[in-house]
Amino acid sequence: MQRLPPARSAHPRVPLNQLLYTCIRQTILEGGLAASTRLPPSRDLAAQLGISRNTVLYAYEQLLAEGYTRTLTGSGTFVCERIPDRLLRSESVAPDRAVAAASAPIRLSSRGKRIVEGARASPRQWGAFMPGLPDVTRFPHRQFRRLEARQWKRLDPAMLSYANGDGYRPLCESLADYLRQARSVRCQPEQILVTEGVHQALDLVVRVLGDVGDLAWVEEPGYWGIRGVLTANGIRQKPVPVDGEGMTMPRQRPVPPRFAFVTPSHQYPLGSVMSMSRRLGLLEYAIRTGMWIVEDDYDSEFRFDGQPIPSLQGLLSGAPVIYIGTFSKTLYPGIRIAYMVLPAALAGVFRTAQLDLYRAGHLVTQAVLAEFIRDGAYAAHIRKMRLVYAARRAFLVNLIRKWLGPEWLHECDSETGLHLVLALPDDVDDVRLTQLALERGILVRPLSSYYLGRARRPGLMLGFASLPEQEMREPFEVLVRCIRECRASRRPAKAA
Amino acid sequence: MQRLPPARSAHPRVPLNQLLYTCIRQTILEGGLAASTRLPPSRDLAAQLGISRNTVLYAYEQLLAEGYTRTLTGSGTFVCERIPDRLLRSESVAPDRAVAAASAPIRLSSRGKRIVEGARASPRQWGAFMPGLPDVTRFPHRQFRRLEARQWKRLDPAMLSYANGDGYRPLCESLADYLRQARSVRCQPEQILVTEGVHQALDLVVRVLGDVGDLAWVEEPGYWGIRGVLTANGIRQKPVPVDGEGMTMPRQRPVPPRFAFVTPSHQYPLGSVMSMSRRLGLLEYAIRTGMWIVEDDYDSEFRFDGQPIPSLQGLLSGAPVIYIGTFSKTLYPGIRIAYMVLPAALAGVFRTAQLDLYRAGHLVTQAVLAEFIRDGAYAAHIRKMRLVYAARRAFLVNLIRKWLGPEWLHECDSETGLHLVLALPDDVDDVRLTQLALERGILVRPLSSYYLGRARRPGLMLGFASLPEQEMREPFEVLVRCIRECRASRRPAKAA
Repeated sequence: MQRLPPARSAHPRVPLNQLLYTCIRQTILEGGLAASTRLPPSRDLAAQLGISRNTVLYAYEQLLAEGYTRTLTGSGTFVCERIPDRLLRSESVAPDRAVAAASAPIRLSSRGKRIVEGARASPRQWGAFMPGLPDVTRFPHRQFRRLEARQWKRLDPAMLSYANGDGYRPLCESLADYLRQARSVRCQPEQILVTEGVHQALDLVVRVLGDVGDLAWVEEPGYWGIRGVLTANGIRQKPVPVDGEGMTMPRQRPVPPRFAFVTPSHQYPLGSVMSMSRRLGLLEYAIRTGMWIVEDDYDSEFRFDGQPIPSLQGLLSGAPVIYIGTFSKTLYPGIRIAYMVLPAALAGVFRTAQLDLYRAGHLVTQAVLAEFIRDGAYAAHIRKMRLVYAARRAFLVNLIRKWLGPEWLHECDSETGLHLVLALPDDVDDVRLTQLALERGILVRPLSSYYLGRARRPGLMLGFASLPEQEMREPFEVLVRCIRECRASRRPAKAA
Repeated sequence: MQRLPPARSAHPRVPLNQLLYTCIRQTILEGGLAASTRLPPSRDLAAQLGISRNTVLYAYEQLLAEGYTRTLTGSGTFVCERIPDRLLRSESVAPDRAVAAASAPIRLSSRGKRIVEGARASPRQWGAFMPGLPDVTRFPHRQFRRLEARQWKRLDPAMLSYANGDGYRPLCESLADYLRQARSVRCQPEQILVTEGVHQALDLVVRVLGDVGDLAWVEEPGYWGIRGVLTANGIRQKPVPVDGEGMTMPRQRPVPPRFAFVTPSHQYPLGSVMSMSRRLGLLEYAIRTGMWIVEDDYDSEFRFDGQPIPSLQGLLSGAPVIYIGTFSKTLYPGIRIAYMVLPAALAGVFRTAQLDLYRAGHLVTQAVLAEFIRDGAYAAHIRKMRLVYAARRAFLVNLIRKWLGPEWLHECDSETGLHLVLALPDDVDDVRLTQLALERGILVRPLSSYYLGRARRPGLMLGFASLPEQEMREPFEVLVRCIRECRASRRPAKAA
């Protein structure tokens, strides 16, 4: 065996003879080597394994000594008919202690550590005030499943195979029509790629266009999900503050970034709409420096006080913008279908990379979705849900005004989407408050967890979309009590 | 505006006044600024945009000069009622030439270039002899959809939300039972993570346990899909030759690798089963150096000449092995559900990382699958398909023997899985042969494309699973003619 540089030896060495002994013993204990089976001659096994005969002899002697095997002179070593009783207790089937000890110190990569330490996804995905969840109980699943049944009836077997790295063509066509009309996106079906959720779209962008060490501007506060994807891909992040006009333009730009990730139609999480001047400024800077703008348009279909804000992508044809949308908010998150609209010149390479990196499927669902959109059922569902959500939002805003006061609604709020931000007084620790609420079954999220740096002020993300009005008052009152508790417990500490 | 280091200026600069003009013009042409709309005063717009008033004035003058706007002294600038006819032609809505020219040179990242250049996924996913495809027409979709209908009927809304980064618990339980029995895998449900296909599992392993620059041993030849994932994550690859006993152990190991990716039960693509001595040697080396063995057990359920080969993972409890399996071959590829069995100590961090990096869903399908396995329907389907595939394989082997000769079956073949390798004479270019076959509608793949380095000998991957016997003869005869053509066309060249 070769000597290893000691720094790389993550584990203490397990002697080979012990390993061999353990493997044979476990195999016997678990019935893999039946009673009376003859073990190969030590010389043969040693040659087969490419190890010294002494190693094999040690293991064989150990097995013999412990009563697992017996020898018949001249005939070799055999597995015993009766394994000694004490060895049949469950503990003896437990991992061999030497091996377990050797493999105990598990070392994550630095990348893995950063990913795990930076993880901010909620461990719960359903409950009162959980932000970002649509009311999935309203998803027209009977209608959807009728279309699905038709697909299965006339099934082309290719629909059950892998997808081709772009998406089911009729879905891209339906989507292109929908996006042009509803979101002022400039696109042809060829520019659309269907992805497994928004994260895969972000991952693909960053891999095809970004190198390890490249810089990305991310909104501060911003979507937590982008951070893990950037960390995993070695992209450095510069948090760029957000105000009532969306992402500001950093004054200091010693090196132009490779990407700017923005949510111009409904800033996540604060809610601002990016102003026209910011849009133009960002576009101009991107064109001049070769930066890519990645527009995450995650829930702006649900705008309650007027027409949806047109996409940034649609402002200028040929703009260096990659537009990303999703069905998670309009239908249901578990469907895991998102899409990206690429500049035509990029579509081919993205398709190739997607096919190679992720392999796609789910073509039956994509075909159903294509019909669902083409028949107008998708637009109708959105129209219906917009009214439902508008009423729920208004109800929640009313509760906030009545119980807390109008100044508790965040100043950047723009009456869009599935959540709003409750601006908390500076003396409330939003993480503690979230914990307190969770103990009472309420799934809010602390605004501070959406910051890479220090939060400017505490806040709470409240989802209102999945909660009918009549079920909102009670958890809201619980939440108000939690806030009061948090404030009360702070005051004496300050006085002291 | 700041000056940029010239090396980073990927695009020529587009003057801001031109950009502003283009945006306003396009918006007018597309009806975004209706006739008679008043444009903001140039001073206001300049202040809003944070640009000089001259820039705005230039854009306004250009619009005025081209007849898009008119001025009323004292009242400001208005959009014209009638846009000049010539401007309504479709070409004028085409991308502004200056902008298009500026954004033309699209620069992929080095990573993106390597991914796209190294991509080897087939652009087609269904057809005669396409390797790796099960017969999806036999998937018991009525039974599966009946279970699905039950799920939708009693639906818990949380099932339509995001998953929690591990998988639906009952599926993990069903899987653990199945894997213990069928694949001798040592596992508890807590050790199982459900992933979106094998690629996501590989990606997650490499990210959590590997850093940029780390080394991985990959089988040579080996699964093409691992390469894009490793490239995207900055992991260096050392191709390690495969023989009839599976992956060899490299003699030169100046630095121990972080990973060894192996297919011990059925080497992909050649077909060997890794010998016990190789398994022990690999385990011993992994324990000693801290290397992780990633066992891809993609299709060994279909073993035709005896019991399935037990997994490498199950050989030793506490072994540093991550086991990966999939439903792509046993049910259908488009279902996109795979799973990994992790050492218990790793399961928690992997769960956190998965939730953060990919977000999961598809819980309804997972619930159906859990029942499908628990009811025994999954094992029954595998048993049935094993017989179907055995017959198809035997039929194809017979065709090969009869038309070409027994020596054309690759020496590593082990009567397992959904494909076999046709060993070609050295004078056949397998890439050209594949191309020739494709022109006649046959989807084989060249063995040489599974090598990172130079292929040792040409070959063809033939999938037999998706093709009933009676439909196999004809494409096989076409293929034989293609081979003869390839050889005939080579001979004169050699003689010359």
